[in-house]
Amino acid sequence: MLHPDPAAPAAAAAAATRDGLPPMPGGPPHEESHFTASATVRDLVIGTADGLTVPFALAAGLSGAVAANPLIVTAGLAEIAAGCVAMGLGGYLAARTEADHYASERRREEEETRRYPEREKWEVAAILHRYGLKGEALRQAVEAIAADRRKWVDFMVRFELELSEPEPGRAARSAAAIGGAYVVGGLIPLFPYMIYAGTRPALVLSCAVTGAALLGFGWLKAKATGLPALRGAVQTLAIGGAAAGVAYLVARWVGG
Amino acid sequence: MLHPDPAAPAAAAAAATRDGLPPMPGGPPHEESHFTASATVRDLVIGTADGLTVPFALAAGLSGAVAANPLIVTAGLAEIAAGCVAMGLGGYLAARTEADHYASERRREEEETRRYPEREKWEVAAILHRYGLKGEALRQAVEAIAADRRKWVDFMVRFELELSEPEPGRAARSAAAIGGAYVVGGLIPLFPYMIYAGTRPALVLSCAVTGAALLGFGWLKAKATGLPALRGAVQTLAIGGAAAGVAYLVARWVGG
Repeated sequence: MLHPDPAAPAAAAAAATRDGLPPMPGGPPHEESHFTASATVRDLVIGTADGLTVPFALAAGLSGAVAANPLIVTAGLAEIAAGCVAMGLGGYLAARTEADHYASERRREEEETRRYPEREKWEVAAILHRYGLKGEALRQAVEAIAADRRKWVDFMVRFELELSEPEPGRAARSAAAIGGAYVVGGLIPLFPYMIYAGTRPALVLSCAVTGAALLGFGWLKAKATGLPALRGAVQTLAIGGAAAGVAYLVARWVGG
Repeated sequence: MLHPDPAAPAAAAAAATRDGLPPMPGGPPHEESHFTASATVRDLVIGTADGLTVPFALAAGLSGAVAANPLIVTAGLAEIAAGCVAMGLGGYLAARTEADHYASERRREEEETRRYPEREKWEVAAILHRYGLKGEALRQAVEAIAADRRKWVDFMVRFELELSEPEPGRAARSAAAIGGAYVVGGLIPLFPYMIYAGTRPALVLSCAVTGAALLGFGWLKAKATGLPALRGAVQTLAIGGAAAGVAYLVARWVGG
């Protein structure tokens, strides 16, 4: 090695703490291209956007068939309740399963670093090799990673298995927020059927209100997930409109 | 460096092709712990499992309220149509948006390696440093990755942004399979309401058939996604049961 340790005394203090990682150089101006909302606001926006579509389509569909408004409201609320439980409880249980899965995969990977260290070192090497590390630099990098079993297992779990460490508490809150917001989203297309006696004016108002809400929450959902906002708004409206149109035709055909 | 190139002539041929990546050592016996189904079978299983819950809960809920079987079937089919469009079209558009997002993030990362090479090298160093690379080994690893711009950008996109390259064609097929399977899953709880005139026997048969299907497809879905199968079966049944129970109570309370 040319420099097993940095020799220059001036750099010694910095190098001792940063282990050879130099101070961060300047980079692109830190424009915040992502929505700065908290995770909970994000979940509320996603849940509301998702909650709009199916209750809207179901109510529109039933209004094309036999149904009177009280029955449409009953069906809509039953759907909202079912969707809320499926998303909330489903999300919560899925998050707990993921957390257990992560823990058991991590244990297995750690076990493998003990029983088959050469094979696991080779797997580290194979990953780094894909990004251009070769020869002595590759060998040193593998030894450095394998020198600390915790970091070694971290590396394998993240880069071989492509698993991120789950946060179970966060996932539970997220499921509750999405499930709750699904109720709010579902009530938007439904409330016109509660205030009007006739099916036709309720349908017209529901289309207008839900169309605006699909655009607005589609926009916010795209912003919250870092995707192009106008495109998100138009797509969300298109999906809601298509779902409602198809549901209307099906219900008319079956029940009309 | 001790060995800038492997000196031993015996290893020269192998090293020339593998660039210092040795042959793979033996590892754990290659027991196939994952379901070996194709991606399409996986999508069909997931779509069917997801399609069972809400139509089942909606039909059960309505049977607790006013409704006669033809109306339950109409509402159920409208829901299935809406859910199928929402999942199929929604999945398809989301996949296309993801693919564009990936391409634009990749372009931006490449632009940054041209405009701010020192900063982007530092970011590579910061990631590797977390896994134990230090000093000269770290410096060499960063130089090796940054030597090939394509691999450098690959590294940043994968390990900084944590994006995987999407396959747009695959995503479209996946959305079609999930949307189609949602229809099949939704028809399972609904068919008893088509063959019986009375609400009570239809509800009983629907609960029995759907309960068995939730267990079976929950099992298969867990297998297909690499999670514990028995737990997946029980969870899917519990979510479907809870959703149906809540929908039943809501519909009874509102419409009964």
